[in-house]
Amino acid sequence: MVADFAISPVGLGPSLSPYVAEAFKIIERSGVAYQHHAMGTNLEGEWDEVMAVIKACRDAMLASADRVSITIKIDDRPGAGSRLDYKVRSAQEKM
Amino acid sequence: MVADFAISPVGLGPSLSPYVAEAFKIIERSGVAYQHHAMGTNLEGEWDEVMAVIKACRDAMLASADRVSITIKIDDRPGAGSRLDYKVRSAQEKM
Amino acid sequence: MVADFAISPVGLGPSLSPYVAEAFKIIERSGVAYQHHAMGTNLEGEWDEVMAVIKACRDAMLASADRVSITIKIDDRPGAGSRLDYKVRSAQEKM
Amino acid sequence: MVADFAISPVGLGPSLSPYVAEAFKIIERSGVAYQHHAMGTNLEGEWDEVMAVIKACRDAMLASADRVSITIKIDDRPGAGSRLDYKVRSAQEKM
Repeated sequence: MVADFAISPVGLGPSLSPYVAEAFKIIERSGVAYQHHAMGTNLEGEWDEVMAVIKACRDAMLASADRVSITIKIDDRPGAGSRLDYKVRSAQEKM
Repeated sequence: MVADFAISPVGLGPSLSPYVAEAFKIIERSGVAYQHHAMGTNLEGEWDEVMAVIKACRDAMLASADRVSITIKIDDRPGAGSRLDYKVRSAQEKM
Repeated sequence: MVADFAISPVGLGPSLSPYVAEAFKIIERSGVAYQHHAMGTNLEGEWDEVMAVIKACRDAMLASADRVSITIKIDDRPGAGSRLDYKVRSAQEKM
Repeated sequence: MVADFAISPVGLGPSLSPYVAEAFKIIERSGVAYQHHAMGTNLEGEWDEVMAVIKACRDAMLASADRVSITIKIDDRPGAGSRLDYKVRSAQEKM
């Protein structure tokens, strides 16, 4: 599956990039395939491994914030192979 | 935490309510506090129990659909007590 | 169409209910059909009227916050009639 | 503002890329700054211009589908300058 995921602390000032940097470290060490974009990160893998990465980001953020906001959008298509790069290319080829 | 959650099959005709009914059964049997609304269901509980309910809904839907779309929006505020009813009331009292 | 909508300021402390109360006032005065729930508000109407309400909430919030976060999830099914109450009931009847 | 935006028809088979290709054309002709990623497209511009692009994509999709699903996540920070590339870089520099 592919999960588009964003996390941010609530109530800790308008600059979120130090908190996002912490999440990036966890994602990059996790071994799960990922693609950062301006509004989140796409993770690709099995349900349990993807959700474990998101939970680890949340646990780390709750160590410095009292309240955390998370959005996750999942496209789950078992057997479809790797789609992180494929999805944009597939639509572009049909233009 | 509170998680607003919606799930739907992709590519199975415009009427989704039979699939949603299946998810409702899983949610209602789970014992997790919930609130249905027109666009999803709010679940309240610990991370692992809420995510287990969402995963069970997804596993059930993948038994009849090749592709499933899920959105999850989480508000995680440890120690804040039950907020399923409180959040709307709290804002209404400040109007 | 039905739009599930949530708005919050970024960087203004962990208690968001005074800001949400301001949005509630705008929604309730707008004349658009609505349903508050713990994680947002469902609005029902034509595209332009629903989007005008969301923009008015955003303009009001940007008067007191430097940064605002908004999520909108839309289910657009022209000719389907009013669905704010119908959608949950329809799934429950199929359980 | 930056808006992460995804649109899909409901009930038209599991392969969505022809419909997504149609949306890509509208986005690319619009003149609004954009960044495609595996799960959506980030649009950057003023509220009215970004929302006009999203509405045009929706109008085009409703010409071939009875039901359309849209998600929009907005980060609105007036005066912050262009952030489509900046946001990922800013977090990476803090790692």
